[in-house]
Amino acid sequence: MKRTLNKETIKYLGEKVRVSGWVNSRRDHGGIVFLDLRDRSGLLQIVCSSKLVKDIKEEYVLEIVGKIGKRPDKMINLELETGKIELKAEKISVLAATQTLPFEIKDLKVSLPVLFDYRPLTLRNKKVKAIFKVQEELIKNFRKIMKDLEFTEFQAPIIVPTATEGGAELFPIKYFKHKAFLAQSPQLYKQIMVGVFEKVFTVTHAFRAEPSVTTRHLCEYVSLDSEMGFIDSWEELMDTCEIVINNVLLGLSKNCQEELKLFKASISKTEKFPRLKMREAQKIILKRTKRDNTKEPDLEPEDEKEICRWAKEKHKSDFVFITHYPTKKRPFYTFPDPKDPNYTLSFDLLYKGLEIVTGGQRINDYEQLVKNTEKWGNKIKDFKFYLQAFKYGMPPEGGFCLGAERLVKQVLNLENVKEASLFPRDMGRIDQKLSVLQPKKKKK
Amino acid sequence: MKRTLNKETIKYLGEKVRVSGWVNSRRDHGGIVFLDLRDRSGLLQIVCSSKLVKDIKEEYVLEIVGKIGKRPDKMINLELETGKIELKAEKISVLAATQTLPFEIKDLKVSLPVLFDYRPLTLRNKKVKAIFKVQEELIKNFRKIMKDLEFTEFQAPIIVPTATEGGAELFPIKYFKHKAFLAQSPQLYKQIMVGVFEKVFTVTHAFRAEPSVTTRHLCEYVSLDSEMGFIDSWEELMDTCEIVINNVLLGLSKNCQEELKLFKASISKTEKFPRLKMREAQKIILKRTKRDNTKEPDLEPEDEKEICRWAKEKHKSDFVFITHYPTKKRPFYTFPDPKDPNYTLSFDLLYKGLEIVTGGQRINDYEQLVKNTEKWGNKIKDFKFYLQAFKYGMPPEGGFCLGAERLVKQVLNLENVKEASLFPRDMGRIDQKLSVLQPKKKKK
Repeated sequence: MKRTLNKETIKYLGEKVRVSGWVNSRRDHGGIVFLDLRDRSGLLQIVCSSKLVKDIKEEYVLEIVGKIGKRPDKMINLELETGKIELKAEKISVLAATQTLPFEIKDLKVSLPVLFDYRPLTLRNKKVKAIFKVQEELIKNFRKIMKDLEFTEFQAPIIVPTATEGGAELFPIKYFKHKAFLAQSPQLYKQIMVGVFEKVFTVTHAFRAEPSVTTRHLCEYVSLDSEMGFIDSWEELMDTCEIVINNVLLGLSKNCQEELKLFKASISKTEKFPRLKMREAQKIILKRTKRDNTKEPDLEPEDEKEICRWAKEKHKSDFVFITHYPTKKRPFYTFPDPKDPNYTLSFDLLYKGLEIVTGGQRINDYEQLVKNTEKWGNKIKDFKFYLQAFKYGMPPEGGFCLGAERLVKQVLNLENVKEASLFPRDMGRIDQKLSVLQPKKKKK
Repeated sequence: MKRTLNKETIKYLGEKVRVSGWVNSRRDHGGIVFLDLRDRSGLLQIVCSSKLVKDIKEEYVLEIVGKIGKRPDKMINLELETGKIELKAEKISVLAATQTLPFEIKDLKVSLPVLFDYRPLTLRNKKVKAIFKVQEELIKNFRKIMKDLEFTEFQAPIIVPTATEGGAELFPIKYFKHKAFLAQSPQLYKQIMVGVFEKVFTVTHAFRAEPSVTTRHLCEYVSLDSEMGFIDSWEELMDTCEIVINNVLLGLSKNCQEELKLFKASISKTEKFPRLKMREAQKIILKRTKRDNTKEPDLEPEDEKEICRWAKEKHKSDFVFITHYPTKKRPFYTFPDPKDPNYTLSFDLLYKGLEIVTGGQRINDYEQLVKNTEKWGNKIKDFKFYLQAFKYGMPPEGGFCLGAERLVKQVLNLENVKEASLFPRDMGRIDQKLSVLQPKKKKK
């Protein structure tokens, strides 16, 4: 007999089926036992005599043969797709037993460290699992809109020979007898690829050796990167970014209704996002909070939150573009504003108080780029490969990148970006705590 | 005026348009110059007076305004989408100049080292570029068929704390004060994810510190990985693999006709691939070649080629599954054949003489897996995180992984797998030659 998925069993009322999955819960009523069986399609209630399921506990993996029947009226559960039926078990086989669980899975109440220490287990919780259905959908939607906009997907390398954006926060790799690094971003490669396909994107992993533990940083994150050539103006980049973000969110509100409901999250729609120069944003913040950061070269996390409150009140927008960051604070390839070269044609996109996108126009003139590469303290030798793309003809171009985990965090209103990373890496953890995995040797 | 893509200009006969792109070629005929302008959609012939294009050379980036007209009959080129028209340039602006090219791009004739030394430039060649259109399409088709088969896509981590499949060929990372590694494969994580979503796949990068330079190996490659739970038999894995491969190739023959033609490549269809035990394959090879490798624990590259010739002659198949590799030669998690535990329920898929897929059933019983982990010389402590997935209930499961570059190599009949890697990494190269990038310091 072929396996039937739980949600498909509603088609087989009165018939015999074979189902399989994990025991999500067990309720004993005298000699009768009710199990909720969980498979990838949802839950199904199993009824059987207690003799059939003697040692069976939560998370056991079972295969069950039995007949699908109607539930008694008072047991109908309209929240469940299979809530009007149940399976009367005739034969139960244990596909895998389970050791005693360290905590309850279906009503998960654990601290963050425990959540991650037991990730293979805690990911089975409905709400935790939902985060990664949202992540999958988000990335799928990103790819779809990029392809619709005629971008070509490419594979960016992870092993790189030099720092992309300066030497800080790099993870060094021992590469045979040489030294290499984990890519901080696919920046240089996506620019090279503009010379090949004009409009490109990549879904890749990026790495930052962030030496502090915050709620906003990951050492390994999923970067959704795009870059486009032949732009007429740098504002096209923000226009494209709006289209991409709006399409991604539209897809989520269509295809992740159940997941969003679990987090009481709703997605509010704004066609155009307000655009503000950083200096203007600082003035608004000063006016609203009396906090004078107008001399600062960047926005602090508190500023980002404040300017988002302003955008929500003033423009009913969860999003706001901050533009014209100071030239000194941006990487060497950033295009300076011709009207005021101390500032750049660059932008961040803030969403509910958090930066989720960074982008801008790039310098495409070879001589100017060579000059800036050196001015920023880099050796030309290290960037010779990249610079070829410009030496041999590069159109005006720019792009942006979107942090997948940050966007999921903000959509679902999670407290910590690590919750949106399947296997979060930070300075204290790779799966297990590093202090447990690689304890320091005691000095003699 | 909005930019018109080259291939769209055929709609504007007699009208004025603005186009932009790279100069693919320049032909001077007295005072008249013909340019082939290249953009992401194809080529367009530009006619202009030589005064308008004085210094303009190949790979210059131009923006051109002019009128679309019919070509004289004798200049019609039916191989080109825009072969019946041309643009009479009225205004030409240089968006980016180009330094003297080191070699011709459109008729590229360079050695492999030069191909890679100048990758940002050589990727602009039509045939080289086509390889990565095929790669993109292949990965797209892989994702599509996996989603159709109800697999969930997940993001596998790149930074891992331990060796997946033994300690050899690992790249170590300096991870703050600790040591970590680049993932050799997403194996342990995809197995963990079976406990969460039942059927999963990932498109990820995998890393092997391969200490030799061959035509079959890359230090960083794109791994298309899948894993599925609740299998009734390990042969389901090969059935699924057949469906996946056939769908991927079907997509290529539909959507990459032009690219395949450039390489004179054709895709022959076989519904079912022959399946042979490794020991049977060795006997066939002995019979055909008098080469006696029947005592060897694996197939040599020459054996793989020979058994593929056999499959082609005997079964008209470009593919052949080799099964039942010896237990000792496979990783600790491989499921031993209950009928003969010296061999495993594992398989490789060979395509035109090269292994492109590895797969098999895995041990899902916790106690047995713990035992094997130790037997293979691993510390339980290092695998505690992974083992949780089995400690708390894992159904019978297995999966396979497909090397994207190898498949592209075989489809297009490339000589070296590095040609199918956008930015190939090997022991001597990360973009540039490492000996150039990081010359050894001379000893005093």
